[in-house]
Amino acid sequence: MTAFPSDIDISRAASKLPIAEVAARLDIPDEALVPYGRDKAKVERAFLDGLSGRPDGKLILVTAINPTPAGEGKTTTTVGLGDGLNAIGRRAAICLREPSLGPCFGQKGGAAGGGRAQVVPMEDINLHFTGDFHAITSAHNLLAAMVDNHIHWGNALGLDPRRVVWRRVVDMNDRALRDIVVSLGGPSNGMPRETGFDITVASEVMAIVCLASDIADLEARLGRIVVGYRQDRSAVTAADLKATGAMAALLRDAMLPNLVQTLENNPAFVHGGPFANIAHGCNSVVATKAALKLADYVVTEAGFGADLGAEKFFDIKCRMAGLRPDATVIVATVRALKMNGGVARSALASENVEALRKGAANLGRHIENVRGFGVPVIVAINHFATDTAAELDALKAYVARMGVEAVVCRHWAEGSSGILELAQKVAALADGGTADFAPIYADDLSLIGKVETVVRRIYRGKAVTAEPQVMKELERFEAAGFGHLPVCLAKTPYSFSTDPALIGAPEGHIVHIRDVRLSAGAGFVVVICGDILTMPGLPRTPAAEHISLGLDGLIEGLS
Amino acid sequence: MTAFPSDIDISRAASKLPIAEVAARLDIPDEALVPYGRDKAKVERAFLDGLSGRPDGKLILVTAINPTPAGEGKTTTTVGLGDGLNAIGRRAAICLREPSLGPCFGQKGGAAGGGRAQVVPMEDINLHFTGDFHAITSAHNLLAAMVDNHIHWGNALGLDPRRVVWRRVVDMNDRALRDIVVSLGGPSNGMPRETGFDITVASEVMAIVCLASDIADLEARLGRIVVGYRQDRSAVTAADLKATGAMAALLRDAMLPNLVQTLENNPAFVHGGPFANIAHGCNSVVATKAALKLADYVVTEAGFGADLGAEKFFDIKCRMAGLRPDATVIVATVRALKMNGGVARSALASENVEALRKGAANLGRHIENVRGFGVPVIVAINHFATDTAAELDALKAYVARMGVEAVVCRHWAEGSSGILELAQKVAALADGGTADFAPIYADDLSLIGKVETVVRRIYRGKAVTAEPQVMKELERFEAAGFGHLPVCLAKTPYSFSTDPALIGAPEGHIVHIRDVRLSAGAGFVVVICGDILTMPGLPRTPAAEHISLGLDGLIEGLS
Repeated sequence: MTAFPSDIDISRAASKLPIAEVAARLDIPDEALVPYGRDKAKVERAFLDGLSGRPDGKLILVTAINPTPAGEGKTTTTVGLGDGLNAIGRRAAICLREPSLGPCFGQKGGAAGGGRAQVVPMEDINLHFTGDFHAITSAHNLLAAMVDNHIHWGNALGLDPRRVVWRRVVDMNDRALRDIVVSLGGPSNGMPRETGFDITVASEVMAIVCLASDIADLEARLGRIVVGYRQDRSAVTAADLKATGAMAALLRDAMLPNLVQTLENNPAFVHGGPFANIAHGCNSVVATKAALKLADYVVTEAGFGADLGAEKFFDIKCRMAGLRPDATVIVATVRALKMNGGVARSALASENVEALRKGAANLGRHIENVRGFGVPVIVAINHFATDTAAELDALKAYVARMGVEAVVCRHWAEGSSGILELAQKVAALADGGTADFAPIYADDLSLIGKVETVVRRIYRGKAVTAEPQVMKELERFEAAGFGHLPVCLAKTPYSFSTDPALIGAPEGHIVHIRDVRLSAGAGFVVVICGDILTMPGLPRTPAAEHISLGLDGLIEGLS
Repeated sequence: MTAFPSDIDISRAASKLPIAEVAARLDIPDEALVPYGRDKAKVERAFLDGLSGRPDGKLILVTAINPTPAGEGKTTTTVGLGDGLNAIGRRAAICLREPSLGPCFGQKGGAAGGGRAQVVPMEDINLHFTGDFHAITSAHNLLAAMVDNHIHWGNALGLDPRRVVWRRVVDMNDRALRDIVVSLGGPSNGMPRETGFDITVASEVMAIVCLASDIADLEARLGRIVVGYRQDRSAVTAADLKATGAMAALLRDAMLPNLVQTLENNPAFVHGGPFANIAHGCNSVVATKAALKLADYVVTEAGFGADLGAEKFFDIKCRMAGLRPDATVIVATVRALKMNGGVARSALASENVEALRKGAANLGRHIENVRGFGVPVIVAINHFATDTAAELDALKAYVARMGVEAVVCRHWAEGSSGILELAQKVAALADGGTADFAPIYADDLSLIGKVETVVRRIYRGKAVTAEPQVMKELERFEAAGFGHLPVCLAKTPYSFSTDPALIGAPEGHIVHIRDVRLSAGAGFVVVICGDILTMPGLPRTPAAEHISLGLDGLIEGLS
């Protein structure tokens, strides 16, 4: 028996097509491509603008149960499903987020899929790719430099240095930068104050790039960014600082979607990557809309489990962009459901139908939730070698009782040939026209009312609590004209509740709002429930220690 | 009379060739290119490796008198001379540094030449280009994160947190980051300590990328970086932290030279951009060596005036890379020499032959200095509309008395047709075989002896002074085995002395060493004389306020 090859070995053995040939599958002409090497390209603005009159393809969201250390394979399934749809003769494109450098050098590894369901070139996508994250970092930090520069040169706008809320960002896991004091060393270095760095994916500029529909919208959103407040609590914006144009110039190319290919040479747009807690966790609107004009089926994913990812995909991205999803795939694994049923990670290899049935309640809850948005559901059981027939049967039976199909998928090991059944059924579901999408709350509900709706209907909590000053801040946002915005809840991805240990399908818990922040440019109010790190740290032994560059230019150790 | 068009208008009106056609002028085959858009490319490693057996072309350095606010036009002359050599039928390539984002948004503007002597696409080159600076920033900051992470997780290497010397970098003018305290907020955020950010061009990683001959040399140099010291003053390196491989992986593409074109479609390598004070201020060795294999004449430049730029080009870059320059062009303008002769900036438009003659001493000193390296010299008088015949004659006569030719050049207004005479004479000078290059000090001279040699022979100072602890630090470097390294002096570019107001050709001054730093990876000892900012600030009205992005994707306001 030979060992299954590693992701990077499979990636390198891929027979990549020149990117122009991949683009041709979507009838994107060569002259509409901005090549980055032979196997990556951005798609030109003028070509995208010319697509507006075309009809849209079907939009399919891939989401998942709550993540566990056992792994679910959401990105892998998104890639596999795209390949599967192409294999059954459908014109399908994939839309993914771009990976952050932080996890690559930290613990999690890259985010280009796995096994026989990957996008390539894996090393490039996981490292600098086409430079989008660097552009976002630069635009974010230019604004930060202009904030401190404005204060330094006399502070004509009257910014309260104690109430500057615009931090800096770096695409790196660097805990030392979470809380810092800047401008030490005397008057020529500016006005000392407390601040810090977040990871780039947590930047509001990242969320803006991913939600903006075009350059005009980008500039308008950038201009609305609130960098801080005056002593009278009135807001100072990026437009007030005249930073908008230069930020937009830095983001010119970052706004263009990136095209790569799967191992099976099918088109994949990999573009944008906002955090899935303090931002909305989906790939860019520009890429999704372009894909819908170019393909008959577009498969995309959203960060974390469906309670965070799908909810924000529906209530933030689809609401803002006018997208109408046609079907949702919820990815589950026998292993992860057994963990949700109380099995320790070390015991996952043994059959345990009872624990599986218990843990399946987590999946059941997500199925109900997604249906609540009016979108039909199918379950993808991402197959592992240790899954037993009894477990798979029990899981299918559980799902069937909810009137939903569950399909076992072997795309990780087999590529598209392992996911043909799911592809057929997803296509039928999307074509069936049963979707009747609507967000779960209206724009004109109060901000706290929106939070309560999400907590009640998605998290199944019984109440929302908050300190008086948090409630007052929400009222202040409403008074300033931001009451119509959707809310973006940041909480642990591991549970429906705010307690990561409360796995399965808890209900009746209390959700406490710790803090609220206005992302006026992105266009949502961030509601922080529990401890959310916007700057990760490196682990004791960072993955970086095992990454190397060969003399042949091949990178080793990326996963 | 119509106004002369702006740099950006000229740049946009350029008839660019597809980059593959530009490459073909140097017989670089299409398959050796990694395209970045249609008009930029990197050159593949395998192709470069295959060039090693070929003979080298002639190497021509363009340097200048001490810079003044009047402007000298060193980059413009480098581009113009490259075009001029091509216009007279010589196969010539240009090697330039990449611009930093900092000055683009601050005060100075971009660095792609000017008038009819530019490299294009100007906006791309001035903004993210091919991402090299972003890669260098990431590699630098990964090491910084690994330093603090190592201390956080138990500090097995025994780094003294008070003696960490590795700072962080950002490619931005941001004075607030010069002096900061990190790791505040409790134990989970690491060990609080003082540190700061430099601008990316000041990163030792930038200098390493520009001096490394190949991947093996890159990795070796990265590994030698000293990040800090233990309590016993022994050094801790990047190799000790196991950071080298991941840093090299991040720098894989940044090590490949970038090819663009001039307005006249001639090949230009724009690659690397180390600071010209605390680093050596030249484009990459990889690009220069590749150009020498591919072209018969290679025109390159070095930062600031010849006292800083040419000295480091000769004593650091040429010494390390085994380059043997064939000719040097010193760029001077009538305006700048009149300023050196005491004329105020507001009075430069009036003829003043006497002030010119007085200020010409600055040029004369640089001519003598460059000859001291055994390299023949020619002077390029970069013509301005206000120059009078009497002034030009006086300048030519001054230079002729030193046995050197001075040629009036009009490339800014006219392109190659304005610089044909210089091109003919430079080619003849380089072909003449009169060069007998040697650095001005030997490797085995003591570090302080090297400083004294530069001060005596180049700056014409009478003595070098330093506090005892600085002298002790130099002895410590020698004891640790770094005594053989060249020295990299950081001082004001505006004067031969350390006093920026002392223009012209001062002598007999005292040069005081304020600080010394070991750049063990780059391979030099930085000797800081006077106040050197490694992180600029933005001016009261940053250039960023006037930059914008049109709805057509065109960037306005870059200069």
